[in-house]
Amino acid sequence: MSDHVYKKIEIVGSSTTSVEEAVTNAVNRAAKTVKHMRWFEVSEIRGHIDDQKVAHFQVGLKIGFTIEDK
Amino acid sequence: MSDHVYKKIEIVGSSTTSVEEAVTNAVNRAAKTVKHMRWFEVSEIRGHIDDQKVAHFQVGLKIGFTIEDK
Amino acid sequence: MSDHVYKKIEIVGSSTTSVEEAVTNAVNRAAKTVKHMRWFEVSEIRGHIDDQKVAHFQVGLKIGFTIEDK
Amino acid sequence: MSDHVYKKIEIVGSSTTSVEEAVTNAVNRAAKTVKHMRWFEVSEIRGHIDDQKVAHFQVGLKIGFTIEDK
Amino acid sequence: MSDHVYKKIEIVGSSTTSVEEAVTNAVNRAAKTVKHMRWFEVSEIRGHIDDQKVAHFQVGLKIGFTIEDK
Amino acid sequence: MSDHVYKKIEIVGSSTTSVEEAVTNAVNRAAKTVKHMRWFEVSEIRGHIDDQKVAHFQVGLKIGFTIEDK
Amino acid sequence: MSDHVYKKIEIVGSSTTSVEEAVTNAVNRAAKTVKHMRWFEVSEIRGHIDDQKVAHFQVGLKIGFTIEDK
Amino acid sequence: MSDHVYKKIEIVGSSTTSVEEAVTNAVNRAAKTVKHMRWFEVSEIRGHIDDQKVAHFQVGLKIGFTIEDK
Amino acid sequence: MSDHVYKKIEIVGSSTTSVEEAVTNAVNRAAKTVKHMRWFEVSEIRGHIDDQKVAHFQVGLKIGFTIEDK
Amino acid sequence: MSDHVYKKIEIVGSSTTSVEEAVTNAVNRAAKTVKHMRWFEVSEIRGHIDDQKVAHFQVGLKIGFTIEDK
Amino acid sequence: MSDHVYKKIEIVGSSTTSVEEAVTNAVNRAAKTVKHMRWFEVSEIRGHIDDQKVAHFQVGLKIGFTIEDK
Amino acid sequence: MSDHVYKKIEIVGSSTTSVEEAVTNAVNRAAKTVKHMRWFEVSEIRGHIDDQKVAHFQVGLKIGFTIEDK
Repeated sequence: MSDHVYKKIEIVGSSTTSVEEAVTNAVNRAAKTVKHMRWFEVSEIRGHIDDQKVAHFQVGLKIGFTIEDK
Repeated sequence: MSDHVYKKIEIVGSSTTSVEEAVTNAVNRAAKTVKHMRWFEVSEIRGHIDDQKVAHFQVGLKIGFTIEDK
Repeated sequence: MSDHVYKKIEIVGSSTTSVEEAVTNAVNRAAKTVKHMRWFEVSEIRGHIDDQKVAHFQVGLKIGFTIEDK
Repeated sequence: MSDHVYKKIEIVGSSTTSVEEAVTNAVNRAAKTVKHMRWFEVSEIRGHIDDQKVAHFQVGLKIGFTIEDK
Repeated sequence: MSDHVYKKIEIVGSSTTSVEEAVTNAVNRAAKTVKHMRWFEVSEIRGHIDDQKVAHFQVGLKIGFTIEDK
Repeated sequence: MSDHVYKKIEIVGSSTTSVEEAVTNAVNRAAKTVKHMRWFEVSEIRGHIDDQKVAHFQVGLKIGFTIEDK
Repeated sequence: MSDHVYKKIEIVGSSTTSVEEAVTNAVNRAAKTVKHMRWFEVSEIRGHIDDQKVAHFQVGLKIGFTIEDK
Repeated sequence: MSDHVYKKIEIVGSSTTSVEEAVTNAVNRAAKTVKHMRWFEVSEIRGHIDDQKVAHFQVGLKIGFTIEDK
Repeated sequence: MSDHVYKKIEIVGSSTTSVEEAVTNAVNRAAKTVKHMRWFEVSEIRGHIDDQKVAHFQVGLKIGFTIEDK
Repeated sequence: MSDHVYKKIEIVGSSTTSVEEAVTNAVNRAAKTVKHMRWFEVSEIRGHIDDQKVAHFQVGLKIGFTIEDK
Repeated sequence: MSDHVYKKIEIVGSSTTSVEEAVTNAVNRAAKTVKHMRWFEVSEIRGHIDDQKVAHFQVGLKIGFTIEDK
Repeated sequence: MSDHVYKKIEIVGSSTTSVEEAVTNAVNRAAKTVKHMRWFEVSEIRGHIDDQKVAHFQVGLKIGFTIEDK
């Protein structure tokens, strides 16, 4: 395992409900194009306010995945 | 939209249940005196422990709102 | 001067043209309600992209002003 | 109260469900060996991805507790 | 207590003598217009030098206070 | 809008003239390969000095864009 | 000296009077259970406000001490 | 040179031996798919412990490369 | 694995030779009293200069280990 | 080039007009006493407000220059 | 005043008594070789522990001074 | 020792081989003009990539030295 190389990408997921769902939405969307995802790191939690109410949460996260050998 | 000016204020909301409810409580309370709220940024998550259990979550957030022209 | 007390507020100014104009717009707008402004500190530079072009710059700044004795 | 001395320790809790449960798991586990816990501060939110899905959340937190007089 | 909402403001106090007096000056001045103050957090210590000597200390602090229900 | 997922990439633009032109150059170049760009965040301002004069400004920025559903 | 190993612990001391006394209180209390203390690093200065006055200073510090060979 | 545009990507390299080898492994792997690499910036050094011994170092780095004109 | 709780401690290792040896020295010394160590994070690299030469490297690191169930 | 040693100094330049001119003023002034300047890094943008208007921008920057072999 | 250029240097002062005296000692010592000092910014507060007691405070500060025109 | 005053300077050393050699090169070069050096703090590790390979490491460090009494 010691010679693995990983790449990190930065994604922002949204949810009207929760921080966890925003993370899940981001990871699920990334899964369509990125393989071998291993971990995520939350870098930012923010959100929009609409009509004086919390409209949705936006969670920025970095996703790490293994780069396979060519 | 390019000449809008916004102000940010810093609020701390609490909840016995969740980070999201603490955010919502803070935004709802701010809505009583602040108009035209647009976004929030979470700056801190902490909480109190009572009788060796998590008693409540405290979430610090900055709220941005449009300053209307006078 | 040593017993002065200052307050800092956080403002976001916008401009389609430049960082400097965004700062100036923020300070000019604040001048309508805040007296005795003394200095500013830029905390954030960001902006919107519209139709694949930079639409405007948004500059977050803290403005310090003297609180006059009552 | 002014002469209290507190110690802070750093714990990481996990949960397949939520950030809040990860915090609660960490505090509950710490309660087995640490007395007089008073507050916590979240320092990090991350997690593992397994089979292209969020597997669990990991939340780093500092826990502050009163050091009793000997 | 869990549903309290707090606001934080940022103040800079000055003193020719000490960091502590600068904090006290800031809190005392804020007390004239802000009710229900609960805690402060020092964010910055700086000062002016005059005639090659320390002229006064300037201490930036955030003050948290309870927002009373309307 | 609440279920949008965004990606952020990090770009460095250069300009002999200004910070704003460096931002614009970066966004214009990114526009050749990236669709649906929404916002940018400046993370770094630096530059080269040549022959004892400012030769050009280099501005690091993160660009956020919507990931379209497949 | 080059093969020494140190441990750092995080302590919060309080004082109604000064930052220095809060540091001293923390170090004196730690001395009851920790040997071979070598240095401290202040990480946080905050405090409580009671009845609209500064009630006490709280200073967070990390204390480094030599781990003796077993 | 003043109108160059660069992109930065974030990679994590591993090595059982040294920080330098982890950097080299990351750069060598990136070289298989990225052209015109110019510089790197180390953002994080961490590692795994196995059977109570350092198993390998993991070094996070950002790699900057020139984006060629299309 | 999702309900594991970890603790982090902060250690400083030294070496006349290299950053890696300082890390190894710190982990080896910790191994005498701490079980189930899993990872480390380097937080600081510094060192002493003696007789105008680098005398030794000091590397601060946080070590994470599993807290076993009681 | 690999054995070059650089020194960094910290300078603050001012301008009534722009961030760029403040940088240029700082670099031009430094050029009177510092040789072989190579790059700069902006660390702070602030400014003074006079008579309720932006009076001038102050830009803090670090300047790196080659130390020539003696 | 808008075309002033300042330089910042970094000094560490010590005192067995207080943070303020450490700052004063640093500024007084700097006054022997640096002219036109204008302000200071505290960047670090730490200290040594000797014989299980606080031996002295060490305060790191940046000192800004006007560079006179040649 | 309690009334010592130190100065910190910022140096960048390079090496084709290792982080440690870059530190050593920087300290050795500084030794030609700076007396009484006491410690260093690494602030940045980066490097150049040439022909798709790591060309050299660049390590930024602050060097602290005692200012002798005049």
